Amino acid sequence: MSSLLRGGRLTRRRADVVNFISSSEADRRITRPTVLVNEAHVVALQKSRAIQSVAAKKILRALRHLEQSEPPTRGVEDVHVAIEEAVTRRTGTEVGGLLHLGKSRNDQVVTAVRITLRDGLLDLSDLLIGLELCLIRLAKRHQNTVFPGYTHLQPAQPISFGHYLIANCFSLIRDSERLTEAYSRINQSPMGAAAIAGTSVPLDRHLVAKLLGFEGLVEASLDAVGGRDFALEALAVLALTANDLSRISTDLIFYSSSEVGLVELPDEFASTSSIMPQKKNADPLELIRAKAAKVAGIFSSAVSLMHGLTSGYNLDYQEITPMLWESVDEVAACVRVLAALTPRLRIDALVASRAYLDFTAATELANLLVRMEHMPFRTAHQRVGALVRSAVKDGKTLRDLQRTDWQAVLGYRPSGRLMKLISQTLDLTSNIHSYRTYGSPSPRETKRLISHASARCRDLQRTNDRARRRVEESMRMLRRMSGTILSSS
Amino acid sequence: MSSLLRGGRLTRRRADVVNFISSSEADRRITRPTVLVNEAHVVALQKSRAIQSVAAKKILRALRHLEQSEPPTRGVEDVHVAIEEAVTRRTGTEVGGLLHLGKSRNDQVVTAVRITLRDGLLDLSDLLIGLELCLIRLAKRHQNTVFPGYTHLQPAQPISFGHYLIANCFSLIRDSERLTEAYSRINQSPMGAAAIAGTSVPLDRHLVAKLLGFEGLVEASLDAVGGRDFALEALAVLALTANDLSRISTDLIFYSSSEVGLVELPDEFASTSSIMPQKKNADPLELIRAKAAKVAGIFSSAVSLMHGLTSGYNLDYQEITPMLWESVDEVAACVRVLAALTPRLRIDALVASRAYLDFTAATELANLLVRMEHMPFRTAHQRVGALVRSAVKDGKTLRDLQRTDWQAVLGYRPSGRLMKLISQTLDLTSNIHSYRTYGSPSPRETKRLISHASARCRDLQRTNDRARRRVEESMRMLRRMSGTILSSS
Amino acid sequence: MSSLLRGGRLTRRRADVVNFISSSEADRRITRPTVLVNEAHVVALQKSRAIQSVAAKKILRALRHLEQSEPPTRGVEDVHVAIEEAVTRRTGTEVGGLLHLGKSRNDQVVTAVRITLRDGLLDLSDLLIGLELCLIRLAKRHQNTVFPGYTHLQPAQPISFGHYLIANCFSLIRDSERLTEAYSRINQSPMGAAAIAGTSVPLDRHLVAKLLGFEGLVEASLDAVGGRDFALEALAVLALTANDLSRISTDLIFYSSSEVGLVELPDEFASTSSIMPQKKNADPLELIRAKAAKVAGIFSSAVSLMHGLTSGYNLDYQEITPMLWESVDEVAACVRVLAALTPRLRIDALVASRAYLDFTAATELANLLVRMEHMPFRTAHQRVGALVRSAVKDGKTLRDLQRTDWQAVLGYRPSGRLMKLISQTLDLTSNIHSYRTYGSPSPRETKRLISHASARCRDLQRTNDRARRRVEESMRMLRRMSGTILSSS
Amino acid sequence: MSSLLRGGRLTRRRADVVNFISSSEADRRITRPTVLVNEAHVVALQKSRAIQSVAAKKILRALRHLEQSEPPTRGVEDVHVAIEEAVTRRTGTEVGGLLHLGKSRNDQVVTAVRITLRDGLLDLSDLLIGLELCLIRLAKRHQNTVFPGYTHLQPAQPISFGHYLIANCFSLIRDSERLTEAYSRINQSPMGAAAIAGTSVPLDRHLVAKLLGFEGLVEASLDAVGGRDFALEALAVLALTANDLSRISTDLIFYSSSEVGLVELPDEFASTSSIMPQKKNADPLELIRAKAAKVAGIFSSAVSLMHGLTSGYNLDYQEITPMLWESVDEVAACVRVLAALTPRLRIDALVASRAYLDFTAATELANLLVRMEHMPFRTAHQRVGALVRSAVKDGKTLRDLQRTDWQAVLGYRPSGRLMKLISQTLDLTSNIHSYRTYGSPSPRETKRLISHASARCRDLQRTNDRARRRVEESMRMLRRMSGTILSSS
Repeated sequence: MSSLLRGGRLTRRRADVVNFISSSEADRRITRPTVLVNEAHVVALQKSRAIQSVAAKKILRALRHLEQSEPPTRGVEDVHVAIEEAVTRRTGTEVGGLLHLGKSRNDQVVTAVRITLRDGLLDLSDLLIGLELCLIRLAKRHQNTVFPGYTHLQPAQPISFGHYLIANCFSLIRDSERLTEAYSRINQSPMGAAAIAGTSVPLDRHLVAKLLGFEGLVEASLDAVGGRDFALEALAVLALTANDLSRISTDLIFYSSSEVGLVELPDEFASTSSIMPQKKNADPLELIRAKAAKVAGIFSSAVSLMHGLTSGYNLDYQEITPMLWESVDEVAACVRVLAALTPRLRIDALVASRAYLDFTAATELANLLVRMEHMPFRTAHQRVGALVRSAVKDGKTLRDLQRTDWQAVLGYRPSGRLMKLISQTLDLTSNIHSYRTYGSPSPRETKRLISHASARCRDLQRTNDRARRRVEESMRMLRRMSGTILSSS
Repeated sequence: MSSLLRGGRLTRRRADVVNFISSSEADRRITRPTVLVNEAHVVALQKSRAIQSVAAKKILRALRHLEQSEPPTRGVEDVHVAIEEAVTRRTGTEVGGLLHLGKSRNDQVVTAVRITLRDGLLDLSDLLIGLELCLIRLAKRHQNTVFPGYTHLQPAQPISFGHYLIANCFSLIRDSERLTEAYSRINQSPMGAAAIAGTSVPLDRHLVAKLLGFEGLVEASLDAVGGRDFALEALAVLALTANDLSRISTDLIFYSSSEVGLVELPDEFASTSSIMPQKKNADPLELIRAKAAKVAGIFSSAVSLMHGLTSGYNLDYQEITPMLWESVDEVAACVRVLAALTPRLRIDALVASRAYLDFTAATELANLLVRMEHMPFRTAHQRVGALVRSAVKDGKTLRDLQRTDWQAVLGYRPSGRLMKLISQTLDLTSNIHSYRTYGSPSPRETKRLISHASARCRDLQRTNDRARRRVEESMRMLRRMSGTILSSS
Repeated sequence: MSSLLRGGRLTRRRADVVNFISSSEADRRITRPTVLVNEAHVVALQKSRAIQSVAAKKILRALRHLEQSEPPTRGVEDVHVAIEEAVTRRTGTEVGGLLHLGKSRNDQVVTAVRITLRDGLLDLSDLLIGLELCLIRLAKRHQNTVFPGYTHLQPAQPISFGHYLIANCFSLIRDSERLTEAYSRINQSPMGAAAIAGTSVPLDRHLVAKLLGFEGLVEASLDAVGGRDFALEALAVLALTANDLSRISTDLIFYSSSEVGLVELPDEFASTSSIMPQKKNADPLELIRAKAAKVAGIFSSAVSLMHGLTSGYNLDYQEITPMLWESVDEVAACVRVLAALTPRLRIDALVASRAYLDFTAATELANLLVRMEHMPFRTAHQRVGALVRSAVKDGKTLRDLQRTDWQAVLGYRPSGRLMKLISQTLDLTSNIHSYRTYGSPSPRETKRLISHASARCRDLQRTNDRARRRVEESMRMLRRMSGTILSSS
Repeated sequence: MSSLLRGGRLTRRRADVVNFISSSEADRRITRPTVLVNEAHVVALQKSRAIQSVAAKKILRALRHLEQSEPPTRGVEDVHVAIEEAVTRRTGTEVGGLLHLGKSRNDQVVTAVRITLRDGLLDLSDLLIGLELCLIRLAKRHQNTVFPGYTHLQPAQPISFGHYLIANCFSLIRDSERLTEAYSRINQSPMGAAAIAGTSVPLDRHLVAKLLGFEGLVEASLDAVGGRDFALEALAVLALTANDLSRISTDLIFYSSSEVGLVELPDEFASTSSIMPQKKNADPLELIRAKAAKVAGIFSSAVSLMHGLTSGYNLDYQEITPMLWESVDEVAACVRVLAALTPRLRIDALVASRAYLDFTAATELANLLVRMEHMPFRTAHQRVGALVRSAVKDGKTLRDLQRTDWQAVLGYRPSGRLMKLISQTLDLTSNIHSYRTYGSPSPRETKRLISHASARCRDLQRTNDRARRRVEESMRMLRRMSGTILSSS
């Protein structure tokens, strides 16, 4: 605890306790935002005549200096004290002693955390859209690439690799939406709430919010310093995003395993065993999967941390801050790796000719019997099922079956036309063209989905760009207004 | 496994295995929605001429019958099989065997889950707005009721009980917003995605979606049956909501504890000990707190469940369904209890006169010294701190201090005017009027916050009402279109 | 709240609140144990002359009656009240009013929960040993069955299926050990701790503990009613056990997937798709995997529930009780299914001949070069690695390579003896015999591991049997002592 | 990926990917243990003549050198590669290339993690016993200090502060037991399991285990490298321990809050607000509470990480390692702070005279009526309850009540003797002497509990000391055996 605060109520200090409660490690990330919060606060104090221009000028000069050279945080309880001490060292007690007027660490820390989180999520959001565009570009190349669609880890029906990619792209787009919505709730200013009750010091909270790039205020002062649902929401959205990244990774690990061999990872994204030279391990993908679990657990930590706390500020909140950075950083790293890896995937072009995938045509064979033979679907389903069973038993695939085999299950000799349609259905490349429903893996629909996804990405990117501009403009406004004070005589 | 499905590929069955994988218990809740999904599907099949009107008519009649009398689910694998079997029993195999054409349990189950979840969240959302309105009404009565604002479980500054209530109301309003946003992503139709690849059967997915009250489609078929992020999002939002309800409960448990005694619980919401007759235990509030932890853990279960799964449908998803109902129900029950309890709270009207709360005026005393004595805030803070320390040591409160005490810390004899302002500041009721910032606990600002919160609630309610009307209209449309088929000759 | 308790301090009641706080649903499981706790308590009260024999006799008779016919719990707050009311109805207020002397719901409920949990864990423990024995029996049959050992989901080195099974058996044995250790901490009696402070009523806590089959006491009364770490520990051990069951399930899902095809599931444990008749889905295994996530989340719920609570009894604990039953039941069901399924697995006997598994011999090839050619291991590793790379490039396996290929990487012409040893190493069946380390997958070591695991299982079973006998003997003692009172004149 | 491994199968590398998969940051902690593992491995290789003494000597010399000066890990994939590279640089490829013979990163990493975790848990265990002894010493001073026992955050019955402390001490002792049991399962050697299948290289696994201080082997090679239940168990035990520390912290935060004021925190463990000088915040205690939630979430991360993984080694495990260090360090820091803080607590000596605590005598008043007036307990309970209710209504405490008040509820005039016993019971100091049950808060029982807890702590400490000696002896043996090789000619 700094002598700034110790002077009054409490006297002694212990290095081990200061060290235990110190947040200075995790504060490094919020140092610059905290300096900016102080600048905006001082501008507002001066504007409302709560402090005089001369004092404001001196403080602002000291703060500008801090922007360049980080305040020394070693042995200091937190960044807030470090900044006030540094300012006071440069301006003297008379002036520096005014810096904390009308604010508190409670509102200042949550404001700096919101700014840092906002900026981190915006960067992540851009990265995520970048990954979505990667998947879209790759999907375009693979609209016609037959690929097995799996259910229960079993090949179920033929789809295209393009459909696989665009389907997963849509899940990421929903994550982007959630990020955007969370961003709006995060980007609200608590400044002016002071400790929990606002202050009698005249202070324009809207001005401070504007200077710091916020979209609005967390209005009620108790809510502004006491709430951490914005952090929980961010962690939840990050957990969901990580979960989706993990699913793609799990897919690719499975698809690239030697028995399945549908895709091959780029060498530079795989590693070999130190003892088993033939292995090509999907190391980065395994780590993405693992990190998703970590990020989910961090949400669990944070929500549990809030459990049992009363309204108002509690120091427990301090432990949430590093959780935010850890989650944001891990998810961003995962997105970056996936975005670098996916364009370099090699897909087996001959998937359609794999004999064992014949069985994935079974559903459409049943549909064919309904359409052509006017069989109830359930009956068709049973007939095709029986056929598959006998084929499997004989070690055959569906392509090996003869007209007599079909006759056996149909109870009559199938027409030549039917046999021709059957063999067409068994051709997986033509099979995927037969899907007629909206959003299906037919190449035509895949094309439509790609164009739809592209449009969504453009919208999301525009929203991001707008958010970024707002922040940049506020920064300029802060510079302008503090500049006016600094250059006043 | 039903004989419907067993006929083909697999033959034997075991009661214990069927029992283990059976979801019939949890399916009860989605039974009616599943029947409706079947009706909408049949209407669409008939519209696109995939099945004939006569067959459609028979099936619809059987389904209408099922709406009244639940299908027998005992010993049946799941509701989907139960419905198809029941229809087939009434219509014969030729007709009933068409019911499953162009769909799959994979799309059907997720559609029914989305409908049920959507309806549950809409009900919850109404309840939550109801609770917010309760808090608003109570806040109106307590705009001037002085109450200690706590930080670190210590009285920190005077606020009003009205401010406490409205601050917590705003956190619930954000939960309502999240519910609304989640609702939109949930209320999208997967029907037509079939197993994972859509189908060659002609089927108007948009029509089915409309008949079931959906706002749109989950377009990509693999995404439609394979994704469960809608469920994870719902569970996350429920966990956040429960966390906020839990905080209010924790507050009230603390405020009503005998030492604190700020509020008194209504008798009918407390219970006494079986052995300690003097106790008045906040049982329902403790349970709300506990249930919040449970709901958070359910999210943790669900996100962990999805970890390591590949794209496409996996039976693991089946375990998520009961988690949804459990979370929705628990949160709804908690909201209901809080909404019944809060209006009956009794607040100690004489809080302002509690001597030990004098100290909560310290911050404003420091601000007063800054304003009147032109002292740097940090100096003022230290002076007041020293005063508090010596008062505590002497067993006094701030009101007990004399002009000489002030002289001792100021270093000069304070003016009569200052002494008068000091004693005004020490009057907590007048103290809360001194807060000047936007969103502070001053009665004027509390009034503004109340009116703002009311407006937000009205908006949220309007959105809910619109959502409900959409669902009702779709229901009428489904009735109309199936009615047309039923009455055709 | 029952009129038993309402008479004094509080008066009004509300059906919705009673319903919300009622635990009667979850209490059903602890009803019989609670009756027994009451019996043991009454015996002890009579022994210490706190109540007279005549009263004890009447109460015991009423309790015996309750053992047969469950007390009516509908509309009652909890089982404790229901029992006291039922006894009082049969014995009159004068006598029944003595039942609660010297005890409290606080100690009674946690005692009944401990008894029920203890019994549930003992049953589970037996089931788990049963599964371990299944794996052991199956391992005996497969000591020589070559099977790929995977790392990173890639075949890495040849092992035997027997080794796979026994390795997983050992992880389950550790779970059994943890269950046993948790059992001892759970099986301690809180009775006599009353509300939190014990009682002035003379009462032999050791006698009550003995009559209820406990190994000892939770001594400190505050600890006895306030602690729930026994429950958290049980949930943690269950989560770990479920995690191990889930890994076996995940393995089998992967091994039985069509591309991998190492094992085939018994038909009666698989299901087929409603629309894709060729599929054979590992439904029960997918559910085991999902349930493991659920059980892990339940631990998360419970530990979060305890977070922020103070010492002493809180009603929050009530929510932990159903979590215990849910976890125990889910894990027991999973164990049962696995124990039924594993003996029916069919293993591909021809694994050793799969060409692509040649590469798994690479490590031993490198070891061979070290041994025979005195090459540093790292060099040998690189040489073999290069060989694999060129073979993969040419679409060959290691068996296809000629002496000239080896010459190319060795830099000299390999001897005939070396070539012979190489081909021996490439024969996977002989390869697994070459492992020399303790615990390796060589058939000889597998046999030893099997015998070691069997011995561990026998030990565990003996411990279980002892525990069961202790419980049964205590039951007889309770019968005897209460019988003596009942037959007294 | 190091060129050590790249030479063979894979060629290209990317800095960003290497960086992403690098564990070098988290490896720092296992660097020294990994060097030791290499030393023990080399000793065993030489013993079994798998490598020659000359080579062994050179390698051991290089490893000894590494013990002093950490291997450079910057830009290196992991510590294993760094060590091998460093050795190879000093010894040349011919000799250094032998280091990895018969081992793999898979067994090496898990061995080093087990060693580091074992050592960390042993240190933690000592710290925890230290805290228990603190509580015991403090409890001795407070065997007679009356303190309210709380249930539902309401004072329920009088206990002593000594009982409070010893009750919580017992919960920590159970944590110590769990740590000890987990330690035994952790302290088992995986070395010799190599990648997953052991090796054909002759290697005495028992010797390696002994040289590294392990109690035994993880026998089955697949289990040895593939299992991480030892890590999950450690994390679970840490979560439980943290939960208990958190409860003590939560208690102290509540007890020291200004309204409750039962204990006062030492100044050096509290901090004041930056704006509210009268506050004395329990910062370190709030952080302990928060860290407990974090540690619980880490378990959740880890168990979720394992979910869905197949048997064998997966790189996902790498993410568990830093979770272990984080949990161990956080819990150790919390224990240290609590052990420093608790002896400095000041307890309000006059608690017994607080008027509002009169009501906590109610239960014993009811027991008194049973004993003296032969009233059924339930009736006594109701009578006392009614009395409390009327007293509360009149703003009185029980001490204020007159003989006539008692007459009103009893229905007859109480005897002088009864009135005397009533007033004795209302004296809380004499009240706590009246508890007669084993483990109750009577001073006599508290003394017994203290002596019991002390004995348990001594046992635990002895077990720890034994464990520590085993590790130290093994270290000496390793030194001796490697020394023999180093000094051989």
